[in-house]
Amino acid sequence: MDCPLCTTSRDDIVWQDGHCRVILTADPDYPGYCQVIWGEHVAEMSDLAADGQRRLIDVVLATERALRVLLDPDKINLASLGNRVPHLHWHVIARFADDAHFPESIWGRAQRPGRLRAGLERNALSRQITAELSRASVIP
Amino acid sequence: MDCPLCTTSRDDIVWQDGHCRVILTADPDYPGYCQVIWGEHVAEMSDLAADGQRRLIDVVLATERALRVLLDPDKINLASLGNRVPHLHWHVIARFADDAHFPESIWGRAQRPGRLRAGLERNALSRQITAELSRASVIP
Repeated sequence: MDCPLCTTSRDDIVWQDGHCRVILTADPDYPGYCQVIWGEHVAEMSDLAADGQRRLIDVVLATERALRVLLDPDKINLASLGNRVPHLHWHVIARFADDAHFPESIWGRAQRPGRLRAGLERNALSRQITAELSRASVIP
Repeated sequence: MDCPLCTTSRDDIVWQDGHCRVILTADPDYPGYCQVIWGEHVAEMSDLAADGQRRLIDVVLATERALRVLLDPDKINLASLGNRVPHLHWHVIARFADDAHFPESIWGRAQRPGRLRAGLERNALSRQITAELSRASVIP
C-alpha cells in the first residue's frame, strides 16, 4: 500500500505502543509539533472500535499535557484531518502568540516570520508522555 | 465575560445536554460543518476532568458518525483550535473532494469556488446524533 504513514521511521518516534506512535516533527517554526499516528491504515476515528478510540485519545491528550508541562504554550491545537493522507493521525501542536501563524491555524496564512525557538529535547518529551499516560487516563 | 461562546443562541443548537451543545454552522460551502461547544469557559481538553473529556469526545464522535450517515462525505475533519476564542470547542466537518478547500483544511487557501450543496436538515441531524450517542460510546 502506497501510504507514507504505513511506513514507520524509527528516527522520529518519541513514544509508541502496539497501537500507535508519537512523532516529533522537524518543523523549526513549531518545536512542539507532534503527530500521533494510528498503526493500522484506517481513515476515521469512527472506523476504530471503542477501545481503539479510547487508546488513541488517551495518547493524544497525554501528548497535549506533556507539551504543556515542557513548553508552557499559549494554546494547544488538536486536529485529525487526513484529506491528503487518509490514514488516521492527530496533530498536537503547541502554539505561541508570536509563532508564524498565530492566531491562524498552522494551515492558514502566515502572519509573520517564524521565530527560531529552542527545540524540544526528545528524551524529555518521551519521558513526559510516559509519565502523563501513567498518571491520568481517559480510560477509567 | 466577553466570550462569544459563553453566550448561547438557541437558534443554531441541534443537540445539547448539561455539558455541551452541538451547533450547525451556516456556512453555505460546508453544509456538514458542526461545532461541539463545551459549556464552561475552559481553554484546553486537559483543563477538563476525565469524565468531562470522555463526554465531550463522545459527543464529537457521535457527531462524526451522524455526518457520515447523513452525508456520506469523503473525509471527516476534527479540530480543537481556539487560538482566537480560547473556549473549548470542536470543529466536526464533513469534507468532499470537490469542496472549496479540499484537500487543504478549511483554514487554508481556497482551491475552487464552493459548490452550493443541499443543506443538512436540522431535525435529521438532531435525531441522528441522539441515535449515535445511544448506540455506541467511548464510555464503556
